[in-house]
This record gives sequence, C-alpha cells and structure tokens, in this order.
Amino acid sequence: MPNPKLRIIPLGGVGEIGKNMIAIELGKAILVADCGLMFPDEEMLGVDLVIPDFSYLLENRQRVLGVVFTHGHEDHVGGLPYLLRELNLPLWGTRLTLGMIRAKLAEWRLPHRPKLHEVNPARLLRIGPFDIEFFRVCHSIPDGVGLILRTPAGTIVHSGDFKFDQSPIDGRLTELSKLTKVGNEGVLALLCDATNVEKPGYTPSERAVGESLQAIFREAKDRVLVATFASNIHRLQQVFEISAAHKRKVAVVGRSMIGTVEIASALGYLKVPEHTLIPVEQIRRHSPSQVTVLTTGSQGEPLSALTRMAIADHKQLAIHPGDTVIISATPIPGNEDLVFRTVNHLFKRGAHVIYNQSDGVHVSGHANQEEIKLLINLVKPRYLIPIHGEARHQAVMTELAGSLGHPPRQAFALEVGDILELSARTARVVGKVTSSAGVMIDGLGVGDVGEAVLRDRKHLSEDGIVIVVLAIDRQSGQVVAGPDVVSRGFVYVPDADDLLRQARDRVTRTLRSLDLEEITEWTTVKNQVRSSLNRFLYDRLKRRPMVLPIIMEV
Amino acid sequence: MPNPKLRIIPLGGVGEIGKNMIAIELGKAILVADCGLMFPDEEMLGVDLVIPDFSYLLENRQRVLGVVFTHGHEDHVGGLPYLLRELNLPLWGTRLTLGMIRAKLAEWRLPHRPKLHEVNPARLLRIGPFDIEFFRVCHSIPDGVGLILRTPAGTIVHSGDFKFDQSPIDGRLTELSKLTKVGNEGVLALLCDATNVEKPGYTPSERAVGESLQAIFREAKDRVLVATFASNIHRLQQVFEISAAHKRKVAVVGRSMIGTVEIASALGYLKVPEHTLIPVEQIRRHSPSQVTVLTTGSQGEPLSALTRMAIADHKQLAIHPGDTVIISATPIPGNEDLVFRTVNHLFKRGAHVIYNQSDGVHVSGHANQEEIKLLINLVKPRYLIPIHGEARHQAVMTELAGSLGHPPRQAFALEVGDILELSARTARVVGKVTSSAGVMIDGLGVGDVGEAVLRDRKHLSEDGIVIVVLAIDRQSGQVVAGPDVVSRGFVYVPDADDLLRQARDRVTRTLRSLDLEEITEWTTVKNQVRSSLNRFLYDRLKRRPMVLPIIMEV
Repeated sequence: MPNPKLRIIPLGGVGEIGKNMIAIELGKAILVADCGLMFPDEEMLGVDLVIPDFSYLLENRQRVLGVVFTHGHEDHVGGLPYLLRELNLPLWGTRLTLGMIRAKLAEWRLPHRPKLHEVNPARLLRIGPFDIEFFRVCHSIPDGVGLILRTPAGTIVHSGDFKFDQSPIDGRLTELSKLTKVGNEGVLALLCDATNVEKPGYTPSERAVGESLQAIFREAKDRVLVATFASNIHRLQQVFEISAAHKRKVAVVGRSMIGTVEIASALGYLKVPEHTLIPVEQIRRHSPSQVTVLTTGSQGEPLSALTRMAIADHKQLAIHPGDTVIISATPIPGNEDLVFRTVNHLFKRGAHVIYNQSDGVHVSGHANQEEIKLLINLVKPRYLIPIHGEARHQAVMTELAGSLGHPPRQAFALEVGDILELSARTARVVGKVTSSAGVMIDGLGVGDVGEAVLRDRKHLSEDGIVIVVLAIDRQSGQVVAGPDVVSRGFVYVPDADDLLRQARDRVTRTLRSLDLEEITEWTTVKNQVRSSLNRFLYDRLKRRPMVLPIIMEV
Repeated sequence: MPNPKLRIIPLGGVGEIGKNMIAIELGKAILVADCGLMFPDEEMLGVDLVIPDFSYLLENRQRVLGVVFTHGHEDHVGGLPYLLRELNLPLWGTRLTLGMIRAKLAEWRLPHRPKLHEVNPARLLRIGPFDIEFFRVCHSIPDGVGLILRTPAGTIVHSGDFKFDQSPIDGRLTELSKLTKVGNEGVLALLCDATNVEKPGYTPSERAVGESLQAIFREAKDRVLVATFASNIHRLQQVFEISAAHKRKVAVVGRSMIGTVEIASALGYLKVPEHTLIPVEQIRRHSPSQVTVLTTGSQGEPLSALTRMAIADHKQLAIHPGDTVIISATPIPGNEDLVFRTVNHLFKRGAHVIYNQSDGVHVSGHANQEEIKLLINLVKPRYLIPIHGEARHQAVMTELAGSLGHPPRQAFALEVGDILELSARTARVVGKVTSSAGVMIDGLGVGDVGEAVLRDRKHLSEDGIVIVVLAIDRQSGQVVAGPDVVSRGFVYVPDADDLLRQARDRVTRTLRSLDLEEITEWTTVKNQVRSSLNRFLYDRLKRRPMVLPIIMEV
C-alpha cells in the first residue's frame, strides 16, 4: 500500500506575523497546530482583530482530529473561541497553555465544552495516525513546546516560537537532545520561527533583563513602576524577586496583568515571594521607596493602566515626580507612536522613564540568526518552511539557510492556503485551499467588514462626508424640500456657512439644468449632483469628501 | 541704559520633532531661525501637513527682521510659503539652502517676492541689532550651518541640525574652532539638536555608507536600485561615484529626486561623473549589470517611484528577479509598516533587498550622545535648551547634560510658545505667546480642520456612518416619506438587508411613540432617533457608527 499523502497547509502565520495556524494532513486525517489571532494593521480601520479563515476545516469537519497548541500567546490561541463556535474539537496543550485557554473560553458562551488534554512533554502522544513528540522551548511565556511529528512519509519538526536561552528563569532549557536525536534520524521538513531572522547574533538571555532591572532598582529612590507584557511570566517572576530583595511590596494593576498573575500563581508558574503582593489600595500605606507597581501598558495601549496614569486618568494611581517607570518591552512595529506618546507624558509628569533598547530592560523571546542556524544545523531538514514571518522574513531565512554548510534542499515561502505536498523525496505546492487571507472581526461582526467597507472608512477618515438631501414630488417632479447640505468630518461647520451655502446653490443649479419631470431613474440625478459637487469642493478646497446624495419621493 | 531684553520663543520644534522655528527677541527686534513643516501623526486623519502658528509674528509684524535658515530640509523651510503669504520678509541662507527655497517658492503664487540674501559662513553678518556668526555643520544635506548670536545680554548658540563627521563627503567639517572660541568667550544659552540624544556613542560617518554600498555593488550581478532621501546629496554623490567606478550608468526617477539632482548639480553641490547620468528611457539599452537606478520611496510612500515599482504600477520601470534593491534610509517612526510593505512586495518579485540597519547602508545626520556631550563641553553654555525633540528627548538631554563634569546651570524643556527671558545671570519662562501647537493644512484649507473635525473623522473611520432621512408634513406632522436608512463604512450593505430593515422599523417605532404634531423642535426627534438607533446597533453588532438623523419639512 502506498504511503498516505502528507500535506502542510498553513491557514495563517506565513507571509505575515500573527494568527498562527498550520494544518497538517496525513491521508484523511487533519491535525491543526495553533489557532491564533492577529491585530489589525493601520489600514483595517475600526477592525478589532483578524482570525484565520476556517473554511477549509469546516468543509472537512469530519477529518479534523483537533488542535495542538505550542504555547499560550494570543497569536497562537486567540482565534480558538471563533473556531469552537463552529466546530467542537479536542485540544492539546501544556498545563499553562491550557490554563490560559480555559481563562479565555470562560469569557465566551460556546455551544459545547471542548475536551482539554494536558500534554506532558516528557511523553509521546498519539493522535489519530500522528505520532507526536514534544520538545520544550524557551520563549517569552513559560511552558512552550515545539512538535516532532513522525509519519510514514517522513518526520516534520515544528519549532513553535523559540529561542535558545542558556539561563532561563524557570531552568527549563530548549530540549536540544530531542532535536539532535530527530536530526540524526532524518527530518523531512522543518517549520521554523522566522520572527527575528533579520537580527544577527543571539537573543540575550531573559536573565540579562534581571541584571538591568537590579541596577535600576538599586538607584531608584521612590516608587518603581514596571510595564511589561502580562504573559511574560518569567519577567514578572524577576520583578517580584528583585522587589522582594529590595524590600519592596508589589501591587499589580491592569486587567490582563491581574489575570495572569492569578493563573500563573495557581498553576505554579509564578512564585510570588511571601508578604510581597499587596492590593493597589494599600500602596499609600508604604513609603514610595518600598513600592513596586507591575502594570500593563507597555505598548502604550490607550486604555491600559500605564497610559491612563500617564495622562492622569487612572482611578487609583497617579504618577509622581521621582517615580521610576520602566517600559520592559519593545514597541511592536506600528505601536511606536503610542509608546512614545506615553513616555512623553510620563516625563512631563516628572517621572524618570527607562524605555530605551540600550538600557537592556527587554529581550526578545524569539531566536536570532545564529540560533536559527543552530536549529537548522541540528535538525538538518530536507525542506525548510519559514513560519511566523512576512515575505521579508521568509526571504531572509531562505538566504540564511542557503549560507549553511549543509543547506536544506529547498525553502518554501508559503502563502496562506498553499498546499505543500511532501514525500520522502519531493515537496511541492500542489494548489490552494479555499481560504481568504484572514477574517476581520469588528464588534460582533465576523467577516462582514471587507474591502468595500474599509474603502469607505478610509475615504470618510480622510475628508469626511457631505450629504445632500432633497424631497421631490412624485407626480410633478418638483423639488419640494431641500436641497439641504449636511457635512461631518469635512470642515468646521460654524466657520463654513458661506461654503456650504454655495455648495447648496451649486446643487440647486445642477438640479435646474436637469429636466426632473422626464427623469424616471434617480441614479442619473444623484450622479450629476455628486459630480458637480465633487468638482466644486475640490476646486475650492482641494478636498474630496464622500458626497452622498439622498432623494426622497413624497 | 539697561540692556534690551533677550527672549527665546520657540514657535515649533520643541516638545515635538518637526516644524522647527525659533524666534529670538532682542528688545523690539525679532529674528526668526527656520520655518519648517511637520508631517501629520496618525491621529490627524486626512491632514496633509502641519505648520507653526504664526500669530505672534503677525501680531508683531513691524518688529520682525526676517528669517535665517540653518539648512534646506522640509522641517526647516517647508512652512515658509505659508508665512510669506502673510508677511513679506527678507530671508538669509547658504547657497544650497536658498536654492532649495527658490525651487519651493517657484511652485507658489505669492503676493510678493521676498529678498533672498546668500550667507557666506566665513563672514560675520549683522541683522538689526543681531551680530551673527555662522559655523558650518555636517548633516544629511550639504551647506548646513549653526548660528552664534552675540547680544548685549549674552551669546546664544543655535546648533542647527548637526553631527560631527570626521570624514564628510564634501570635506567640510563641523567648524569646531568657532565653537571652541565662542565657548571660551562665554555662552549664555545653547539651543541643541536633541534628535538622537537617546542613542549612545557616535553617529558613523557618511563615508561608512559608501563602504557598505561598494561591497553590495561588487556582488550585484544585475541592476542596482538605490532608494534614499532626495535631499541627501552626499549619499547621491556616493551612489554616482560608486556606480561610475563599477561602470554603471545612473538613471534618476521620482520627482523630488530629479529636482534635487538638477538643483544640486547646477549649484555645484553634486558632481555627476561624466557620461554617467542617463534618462530612464535609455535603461533598456544597457545590460542590467551596467545600470543603477536612483529612486525616491525610501519611506515606502504610497505614490513614490519605488513603491509603484514594487506593486508593478510604475509606468517606466518594473522589478525583475535578480535586481538588487537598497533601501538607504531608516524608516521614520510611524513609517515602518509602509516601508516593510514595500520590502515584502520587492522580495515577492524576486529582488534581493537590502534594508536592514545591520547592513550599514544608512547613517543618521544627527549627533548621538557623545557628540552632544562634546558640543556642550566645547560651548560650555550657562543654559541649555534642547530643540528638535519631544518631551522624552528633552528629558534625556537634560539628564545627559547633568552627567557632565561642568554641567549647564539649568536645562529648559520648553513648549511651543513659551517665552524664555534671559539675562547674563538668570533665565526663566515668563509667559506664553498667543500660539496653538500647530496649524493643520488639509488641501487648500489652513487651520479649518481642528479637533472637532478630526474627532468626526476618527469616529467615521472606526464604524462608519448611518444616516436616517425622513420627510414630515409641516402642517399635519405626518411622516410623508421615509424613514430611509443609508449607511457607509458600517456594514457590507448587500449582506445587511435584514439589519437595515430592522433599523428602519426601530426608527418607525420610535417616531410613533412621539407625538409629532405637538413637536415644534426637531432636535428632540433627532435625539430620540439617534439614541434608539445607537442602542439597537450596539446591541446587535457592538458597533457605534455615527448616527445622523436628517428631517425634511415639506
């Protein structure tokens, strides 16, 4: 009997950074790795988030075995509630990952409760025809794993999000021995985290951040506020320990930070030193030199605790001169403006702000070039599939791999929906599954905001809207009311009386030039009004607002 | 007789990066340094650019002596046409700076032609009561200067935009001797470029870029495309020379690039090697290995030549596999997304793209920390005024200066409009002039887009607009047409029939609940309709479009 076909179908996370989701097919069986979300780029106006297009899985719902998670970050688990609304699937993940998933699902009313299976990375797992071995990886959240899938067609290694940290906070090293072993057995394809492939050298150890923090805590005379990603539990652990060592109490603010501290403590991933944690209300009872505040807002998010404090809009906390604020994170590309705005406000309130990359208060959770080369050299894959990267990351990883002594035979810069079919000797893209690049969520709407709506929002955002309303007598064709001209986001109306009156006159003249009695189709009238008003406004102001004529028949 | 009062009044460029403009008052006389523009931040939807608020100068027009320019960048000269529309002023600048200003003013129809005075930095200049000495500075555009103003109250030094380049392309070093001399005479205040104050060490020499480019040109087999800032004439010079050395012809594309090459060649700032420049139409006559293309688009600007090539939308040029594209620039904060989008497209077309900071294909034109410290140590000012920087740059420079062996007595983090009054022994902020933070330009409108319009544009951009129109009989109070519900940027209308019908029903019910015959003020009706529809749409979709009721009386 010939081997069942092995196919890798990325439903997200290739050609983009975010909403990671890889479907792996062996014959009829489909196993899914991760189900993430992505935050909208600046062109997706008003969109809250983007999830993968699940069409292929829904079309083949009988064949889907379930979802295996590599770790608990939003870009790997955040799309799950939307998937579970459509499909009841069993889920596999390590303890912390399942903890984060449970907390997330608790906020949703789902049609069924999925089965959650805790993974022990020391054990092998079989799901349908898939033999799975997990290997621990260091990352900016604990309990991350990569996957080794041994199939009759060959072995696939999925790196997860990884780095090689030689001194991780929890003592759990990336499991090189498993990688060495599978590399020696022979690996058909490696799916490899490309996030930091543009960066030379090695990512520093998480412990380096601790050293920088220590130096800052030593100097700080008053309160220290540390903003970081809530899910970076290693970082939180270090802040707690350094605070305790400096006899500081720690107050935690920000919804997601409070949530993570609870979950991670309950599951044993965060060890809060005794008598260190205090409720935010008790800060006043301690002198500023005895207080640390652990807060959300490291990305300058407008509603986060730190941003509110920066603009004096937080209910419980204010920034005081003498406070030291540490932004223990790097702005995600696109967030720089928000972060710097917050930093500027903090400085204006007299805080000493430490936010610079050169201050060593943040390290990445992803492998840099030398680490990626090390992984490829250990795993020695026949084929390489960069994941977790845009086209530029895919291209740079392909180049990087080509420079190695024993380069992979081929690297594939896949796009979302591509079907990569593999055999022991060949790999090629054989087609594409039904899949859009992503599904946009706006409020409760899933996928109802598309290109057309975004185009309108962009138009509205640039020059506003000018609405022309008139009522026409059905019988006589006479204009019986209007034209009225109403605008929003176009000009400051109280100062634009003249302009709007002239615009109305222009419409009136346009209407007069048309023989309204003869017209049976209002579209013509609307088009004429629109184009004459467009021209008038552009001549006058060099602006092109959306012009919307509305005609009422009475 | 007591000394006339010396005042420094920044009208831009403090607490922000952009639209640099400093007014310096000595008694009744006002001298202005620079008149720049700023590009809008992402919250200024639809705004084209921002200029300084000139109110103070217009209110004191008789006292303004003119404008002295430090160099020809847009953030130092771009606001000039708007100022000249209101005020006829003489202008001073070095030859290239005036060349750029002339080219800019030629595009405007101004009420009068200003007098342009060419500055020779080797000579002293007197303008009204001001004794001015210029010192040459290295920067990312040639012919930049800083200012030394000797007044009875003390000496002011204005750094301009500077770096210390020990091997500048044009051989013109920053004139340390003048700075040393004035430092020994005694300096009351130093206005110092803070752009790069967050960066440790020294900015590398422009010549370092040449070395990186050489290495890339040596390896390139096909065409090389170099995108950079048009005004970086040193960079252009290097590209021309390296191309000539590699027997490559150079074609120039992009309006601003073509313009700068013309001006800079005509004025002798750019020396194009013989037989090197070719028109873009002639590229085909040469083999790819003999062609360099110098192009705009280093910031991923949507309409620039490089971006158009990247998306196969350029009339004359397309990207071919084998092309080497060098992005010889760093994304300005906020432009990262655009730049990376272009880079991704270029990779997808098979180009080899060099865009990474670690590739050494760009250096900054601004001084880093060690250079700033050197300047302060040479000038030894009593007071320090960080310019060209946001609050964070001002704060970091204040800290940096405080760490020096002989720190300035005080540093001032000024805001736009602050009046800093100085004497030989004191300096303090004594008030604020009439000045907004900036004036927004949208099309031909100057200042007519303000907070209210931007708030509407933001609202429209996030959830679109829902318009409710109805016609009511004036006499009977009966609804004779409508309500009609029209939306834009809210939902995809063809799929939202049901929702919009229900919205209309909701409005109808709201109207029925009101006694229209009794109502004399339509505002009440509109408010009721708006709030009931708001509630309905939020319940259904968790979206808050702008709801705009329009009532016509017939």
